Amino acid sequence: MTLDSGPLVQTAIYIAGGAEWPLASEEWEERARAALEPGAFDYVAGGAGAEATMRANLEAFERMRLRPRMLVGTAERDLSVEVLGLRSPVPFLLAPVGVLSIVHPDAELAVARAAAATGVPLVLSSAASTSLEDVAAVGPPRWYQLYWYSNREIAASLVKRAEQAGYGAIVLTLDTLMLGWRDRDLRRGYLPFLQGEGLAQFFSDPVFLAGLDTPPGEDVATASIQALATFPNLGLTWDDLAWLREQTSLPLVVKGVLRGDDARLALEHGAAGIVVSNHGGRQVDGAVAALDALVEVREEVGDGAVVLMDSGVRRGADVLKALALGADAVLVGRPYAYGLAVGGQAGVEAVIAQLAAELDVTCALAGVRTVADADRSLVSP
Amino acid sequence: MTLDSGPLVQTAIYIAGGAEWPLASEEWEERARAALEPGAFDYVAGGAGAEATMRANLEAFERMRLRPRMLVGTAERDLSVEVLGLRSPVPFLLAPVGVLSIVHPDAELAVARAAAATGVPLVLSSAASTSLEDVAAVGPPRWYQLYWYSNREIAASLVKRAEQAGYGAIVLTLDTLMLGWRDRDLRRGYLPFLQGEGLAQFFSDPVFLAGLDTPPGEDVATASIQALATFPNLGLTWDDLAWLREQTSLPLVVKGVLRGDDARLALEHGAAGIVVSNHGGRQVDGAVAALDALVEVREEVGDGAVVLMDSGVRRGADVLKALALGADAVLVGRPYAYGLAVGGQAGVEAVIAQLAAELDVTCALAGVRTVADADRSLVSP
Amino acid sequence: MTLDSGPLVQTAIYIAGGAEWPLASEEWEERARAALEPGAFDYVAGGAGAEATMRANLEAFERMRLRPRMLVGTAERDLSVEVLGLRSPVPFLLAPVGVLSIVHPDAELAVARAAAATGVPLVLSSAASTSLEDVAAVGPPRWYQLYWYSNREIAASLVKRAEQAGYGAIVLTLDTLMLGWRDRDLRRGYLPFLQGEGLAQFFSDPVFLAGLDTPPGEDVATASIQALATFPNLGLTWDDLAWLREQTSLPLVVKGVLRGDDARLALEHGAAGIVVSNHGGRQVDGAVAALDALVEVREEVGDGAVVLMDSGVRRGADVLKALALGADAVLVGRPYAYGLAVGGQAGVEAVIAQLAAELDVTCALAGVRTVADADRSLVSP
Amino acid sequence: MTLDSGPLVQTAIYIAGGAEWPLASEEWEERARAALEPGAFDYVAGGAGAEATMRANLEAFERMRLRPRMLVGTAERDLSVEVLGLRSPVPFLLAPVGVLSIVHPDAELAVARAAAATGVPLVLSSAASTSLEDVAAVGPPRWYQLYWYSNREIAASLVKRAEQAGYGAIVLTLDTLMLGWRDRDLRRGYLPFLQGEGLAQFFSDPVFLAGLDTPPGEDVATASIQALATFPNLGLTWDDLAWLREQTSLPLVVKGVLRGDDARLALEHGAAGIVVSNHGGRQVDGAVAALDALVEVREEVGDGAVVLMDSGVRRGADVLKALALGADAVLVGRPYAYGLAVGGQAGVEAVIAQLAAELDVTCALAGVRTVADADRSLVSP
Repeated sequence: MTLDSGPLVQTAIYIAGGAEWPLASEEWEERARAALEPGAFDYVAGGAGAEATMRANLEAFERMRLRPRMLVGTAERDLSVEVLGLRSPVPFLLAPVGVLSIVHPDAELAVARAAAATGVPLVLSSAASTSLEDVAAVGPPRWYQLYWYSNREIAASLVKRAEQAGYGAIVLTLDTLMLGWRDRDLRRGYLPFLQGEGLAQFFSDPVFLAGLDTPPGEDVATASIQALATFPNLGLTWDDLAWLREQTSLPLVVKGVLRGDDARLALEHGAAGIVVSNHGGRQVDGAVAALDALVEVREEVGDGAVVLMDSGVRRGADVLKALALGADAVLVGRPYAYGLAVGGQAGVEAVIAQLAAELDVTCALAGVRTVADADRSLVSP
Repeated sequence: MTLDSGPLVQTAIYIAGGAEWPLASEEWEERARAALEPGAFDYVAGGAGAEATMRANLEAFERMRLRPRMLVGTAERDLSVEVLGLRSPVPFLLAPVGVLSIVHPDAELAVARAAAATGVPLVLSSAASTSLEDVAAVGPPRWYQLYWYSNREIAASLVKRAEQAGYGAIVLTLDTLMLGWRDRDLRRGYLPFLQGEGLAQFFSDPVFLAGLDTPPGEDVATASIQALATFPNLGLTWDDLAWLREQTSLPLVVKGVLRGDDARLALEHGAAGIVVSNHGGRQVDGAVAALDALVEVREEVGDGAVVLMDSGVRRGADVLKALALGADAVLVGRPYAYGLAVGGQAGVEAVIAQLAAELDVTCALAGVRTVADADRSLVSP
Repeated sequence: MTLDSGPLVQTAIYIAGGAEWPLASEEWEERARAALEPGAFDYVAGGAGAEATMRANLEAFERMRLRPRMLVGTAERDLSVEVLGLRSPVPFLLAPVGVLSIVHPDAELAVARAAAATGVPLVLSSAASTSLEDVAAVGPPRWYQLYWYSNREIAASLVKRAEQAGYGAIVLTLDTLMLGWRDRDLRRGYLPFLQGEGLAQFFSDPVFLAGLDTPPGEDVATASIQALATFPNLGLTWDDLAWLREQTSLPLVVKGVLRGDDARLALEHGAAGIVVSNHGGRQVDGAVAALDALVEVREEVGDGAVVLMDSGVRRGADVLKALALGADAVLVGRPYAYGLAVGGQAGVEAVIAQLAAELDVTCALAGVRTVADADRSLVSP
Repeated sequence: MTLDSGPLVQTAIYIAGGAEWPLASEEWEERARAALEPGAFDYVAGGAGAEATMRANLEAFERMRLRPRMLVGTAERDLSVEVLGLRSPVPFLLAPVGVLSIVHPDAELAVARAAAATGVPLVLSSAASTSLEDVAAVGPPRWYQLYWYSNREIAASLVKRAEQAGYGAIVLTLDTLMLGWRDRDLRRGYLPFLQGEGLAQFFSDPVFLAGLDTPPGEDVATASIQALATFPNLGLTWDDLAWLREQTSLPLVVKGVLRGDDARLALEHGAAGIVVSNHGGRQVDGAVAALDALVEVREEVGDGAVVLMDSGVRRGADVLKALALGADAVLVGRPYAYGLAVGGQAGVEAVIAQLAAELDVTCALAGVRTVADADRSLVSP
């Protein structure tokens, strides 16, 4: 663990005479808004439809209340987690966020470097602007998020490349077999993939390249269209997971589950873990808050199953609430994307360090020494 | 079905570099406000009293949450419905909205043309600015909404004309046996009927015209007053439905039901279907939200009965929530009236196409292939 | 009944081309704010402490939802009530509001004339700016509200004068044995009684006058202090009601009850009726909303007892909700005080006519022919 | 009791022609904001993280509703309390607030003088800017709040000094074994202790001074760092209370309990009383509202145990609600700190007098003669 403890970070800020970076998630967001062109900012910050689910995600965290325990003896804390063999010094990972080239020129490489520097693993997006091999070269490989493109040869190729590059799990996103209906992006027709952004896995993939008449370097528009055409894949069913399981020996984590019955189906079909998520409110507007779904999912699958969550985590207390409600770990997305926008790799590291520090301080004060202490009794009924 | 699928519409917008029309219902409303004179806008946008029920309608949709299902295989979707023999490619109809001449010179004709172009049926208002025969001439006739005027001969004449013109059902509005108490309209004394607007059914009706001393063309004020005088009809009771049933062989749908016991009474008195509605909050201020009433009504009448709903539907997710809570289909009113204000027929088509597309995308992502998939388990308890 | 029916009022407004007066209670309030000097306005509009109970009163009405009944046959409606022998054409009375001389020079006389003109009874305040005899001379006497001053001779004298002047009941206010803690008034030291306002009952009372060294006309300050000194009377207990009952043969209504057990105590101690009220949020800040208390009180005392309510009634729907939740009638205070500020007697009449008309329209549309139809099933559980 | 009764205070304000001081807590806060430099104001006014718990504290008080009792006979009221031998004329104490030198040059001395003048006891903070002996010299000593520094010799010395100076109890704060994560302070690096503020107990302590190479007067920076270094003490557990109990014969009150099980543990480990508190939302952001925790704690420990509460008390009604929900007394912090900022000792006295007066008026009107009358039935379920 290379992250400083919360008390140390806090003391350092006071000694330095103030925080070098924005502090609250709202501040980071405002600073990112100022740093980005509007289309890019809205692509990251926006959600589906009326953004009711985006609001619901935050509201669910606000509604849940912690019940701190006193005098537990929290001088020594170890908030590290190990999920399917992946270790993190803190109970959060960096969620897959696509097309970071619109946020910062260093894109995923900056994030990967921040991940390596802090030890907090990155789940690399299928829609990254950097090839999975280049990201893996930065440091200890992590997990690979897969959009299962309708072209199975390409999907298989990506999975094999990820395995070969040392990624430790395939995180299959279930909730985005096509893009959600996003007002902000539709209004201005903002879809950076059309300009070839976020297609690095395609453009570095031998199977995809073999199917092109002209290489992307010569005709990026056609190549982009051809890549995008494989994106929608609504025909997928649970039974298809069997085929995917055959392509790799990596554990399969499915992301985007919002119902207990779906969680059970996932496990029955060979998933090694589940990420409860509504994709940050970017897919089905009106969907249930992820934190509420987490409660249902954990209840359905029992204590043994691996369950993570994302969508709405902004502060240390949010992480703790999610753990208490049954998550083995959480993923954070927009917060580090804002950090990237504001300060590149250093910004991402600052976001990670702050979140870790605030979580650590919160745990120290709430009687939590390890994630095992964050049980159901730590939140109000 | 002449409507493009959601993914196609979405792709087309991105390819075109942005949406040609407003997207969110709030945007449409703002654009309509700019396009209309204040009295006309407030007539459409306003509600009864303190507009508490208008707010409640929207709040009920916001409160309900979808529980999307993953990996159902939604590549093929058919969201069409058939209600009492009327088919629609989508599970929504165009609600009866009166006096559209204040919104756009093409009024109901523009709406009927948009309905014909998209295949989404129109329920023509009794208070239309265009005769029911002229509207029927535009395309496949749909349903006819009836205000049961106190003059039975006129009411009977309208019903017979509708039947003759090929309308497929009579939608009897129960909740407007007189106008609600509407602050916005009362404040400025806005009642376009006094100037002869919205009285096309009267002015084209042989029975009504026979009772006039001077034809409307020569003295519109007197004719208007005479028509309006037949409007209040508070004496009606359930038993009167028998008389109406005798005037026509068309199925009778009653609109404006907000209680389970009333729904049962309607069925007992020969209604073929029910529209749960509070008239968009325009009649009884303080009345229960229509979506909440839908739950009660469906519970009371069971699965077999035909139950539609309106009041508060603004987005694709709203349609889906209403279906999941028991509606066979919904009606949308204000949204297309704003489309008409903003762009005439093309604006109405845009509203329809957007709503259909967003609904289709939402269904694709929520595991809904047909309306039958939208069962009670699709919403949170 | 001299009030026009709702439909007539509505039609007249449309024919006239708009409302002559403000319509919504918020509009009346704003107009009154403009008409009055700030101290007087705040005295009327303000409440105790943080005004949480004022907000709660309104919020409770907003929260309750009506369940309109269709096709009941509401062409004929009679919303008149008779409460302890007092008849009103509508199920609301004019609540006792003190010191109206700060609102309009015609003060209670204007209100009494409006009451006489409309037939809606006035409950005259003990703290009126006009002697009870002068008010009684305006028209059919109504009820007399009593602050039970610590000087029993004065209290007895007032009760006897009210009886002699033809008032039909004594409405004893329980919740104001001293003034509440009112920020707005305390801030500027606004207490008009100190200048002799609102003390007409004292200054016309032989017992009080006999106790003065100098008549009010020569030394109003001293007389005012002497009157005010009798106001606080916190020592009163239920047992004291026996003495008051002996002073008069008039029925005794107690006002300011917020608990079921207190309602029962009132009846046991000889009260003929109860007014559930928190004095419009002017006495105990943080007290339960009056509408919520009404439910508890009605449940406790059963159907037979006479139960009225005030505090928060602003619109027709509010009256109907209170009836449905168990009130035999309601009282309205601030609304008519604002009418008085805006237009004197005519303003009060306008407020009464509007409220009656909106209520009548609401009843017509909600299936309510008489107050008996407004049963518990008319509101959502 | 040197505090005037509520009616007297109220009358005096009216006679004086208005309040000399701000009235509502929001007004005091705004005036304090104007009087203080931003860092100092935010240190007092701010909370941890997103300040969700700060909002929750206030919201819980707003949500609870009083059920006033009528005609109880409240002419004589005695709201005094005795808690562990400490008497107060009112059921509230002055909470420990540290480093008041940043608020006013007279700091804790002004507060202590106001406490002496009003008879309302002060719980002196460990982080005061004035030595406990100097504060004790002002008047009747009260309670001493202890941060249990990691250096046991210093902690023991402070406890012994407090006992010697006549303090009546040790109030051990459990929830601040390190500072919470406070955005406002971190942003500008505001930590006045670094400049030697709020360290008067250290700088007057023989044990601490003996451990210094250079006295604070010569090198305040080093002395401050050395003092601060003893502050974090997260290793403490319930068993450590035994040691503390051995250092003193004073009763031990533990402050910062938010759970029933912790309250029971505290009693089992020798605590004589409990303060339910979340430190005004300054420590664990997202923690349960203190008023909600009070209900749980009182339920768990039964009627016999001594339970106080703080966090969110702003008005008279709040005090009464807390009493009704089980508190033996409450503590107020920020309100008097704002009073100090606005007017020094006189400001503190004004805040105390106002809160006492408003509470007294509220009790008089709600049927509460002594704190024993404030039982569970006084608030809505």
